[in-house]
Amino acid sequence: MQKETIERIRRFTEDRDWDQFHSPANLAKSIVIEAAELLECFQWSDTDFDIQQVKEELADVIVYVQDMLDKLGLDADEIVNMKMDQNEAKYPVEKAKGRSDKYNKL
Amino acid sequence: MQKETIERIRRFTEDRDWDQFHSPANLAKSIVIEAAELLECFQWSDTDFDIQQVKEELADVIVYVQDMLDKLGLDADEIVNMKMDQNEAKYPVEKAKGRSDKYNKL
Amino acid sequence: MQKETIERIRRFTEDRDWDQFHSPANLAKSIVIEAAELLECFQWSDTDFDIQQVKEELADVIVYVQDMLDKLGLDADEIVNMKMDQNEAKYPVEKAKGRSDKYNKL
Amino acid sequence: MQKETIERIRRFTEDRDWDQFHSPANLAKSIVIEAAELLECFQWSDTDFDIQQVKEELADVIVYVQDMLDKLGLDADEIVNMKMDQNEAKYPVEKAKGRSDKYNKL
Repeated sequence: MQKETIERIRRFTEDRDWDQFHSPANLAKSIVIEAAELLECFQWSDTDFDIQQVKEELADVIVYVQDMLDKLGLDADEIVNMKMDQNEAKYPVEKAKGRSDKYNKL
Repeated sequence: MQKETIERIRRFTEDRDWDQFHSPANLAKSIVIEAAELLECFQWSDTDFDIQQVKEELADVIVYVQDMLDKLGLDADEIVNMKMDQNEAKYPVEKAKGRSDKYNKL
Repeated sequence: MQKETIERIRRFTEDRDWDQFHSPANLAKSIVIEAAELLECFQWSDTDFDIQQVKEELADVIVYVQDMLDKLGLDADEIVNMKMDQNEAKYPVEKAKGRSDKYNKL
Repeated sequence: MQKETIERIRRFTEDRDWDQFHSPANLAKSIVIEAAELLECFQWSDTDFDIQQVKEELADVIVYVQDMLDKLGLDADEIVNMKMDQNEAKYPVEKAKGRSDKYNKL
């Protein structure tokens, strides 16, 4: 996201004095809750979904993810690159290509 | 995230020919599944958590969120700003300050 | 479930002195975490799943649900019948038959 | 649950012709979605929750769990006892007593 969008998310919390509620545990709950609302868009059909609803719920997930990064002083690029190192090692192209199996079943 | 990190996520999927598994519904499931693994870091304690584990699970959430943005051709800044417009309207500072109530209870 | 199975679940917790960890909030987290592991059985395919894995994860959900009923002194029959009263009112047969729409869209 | 309550759940689905939507995958999604609504009762506080809301959401989880048992022809007592065998082996009293650690960290 652009710096301005991130700043907007931070200001929203700050202006409402909501940092007090943003413990890492509460933010983890919030991410799951919003992720489940996103899943609800696909509850009874994989293909017939309301894209506007999807956008709103996905945005909610992103906002709480940003709140958690901020709360813990984490950098998205750093942790994602660290995790991608692991993923690339666990799922070598020659083994994983075209297969959805978990790494321990490859 | 920086363009390179996003490109790395895309290449990872592309190299493994995994786009075929990335239906929006499957990605929504994946986001919830990873979000719940993040929550597992806080299952029995809100304060005594393994920060390395948190980083890895949070990164997994971010990766699947990026996959979903890509799959649906969405822009994170656009949908987050659209949602923040709604959030700011639903939670006016003067009403919401210092309160964790849901907007329909303010 | 039969009384013996419920008693076995209770004894398991008691013998391990785990009641101290079973706050309603922690049990709610636990139910989501296990429910997401159940969903993982269907992450990439709706039809090709490991039934043994499904049984184990579904059992985990049931165990934590029982723990929560016990913790809050609730009776499954009572709360389910209370909720079914609501569901039957919200989804009248003549409106809901053969439709997966949410009650507010019927 | 009593036989009548289980029958009521089955009749509810049958009367509405909803079995067509109850694929195992859709029911797994539904269990997570309701479990996350249960968690929402504890989103910002572990102790200050609305018990009526908790009852309703917990009941929703139970109903979908029953739907899944029915769909897959499973018996709650059987799968729970099978899982409790595993749990008792993974968490021996002498090791697990008073500790919330996962079995692989005991």
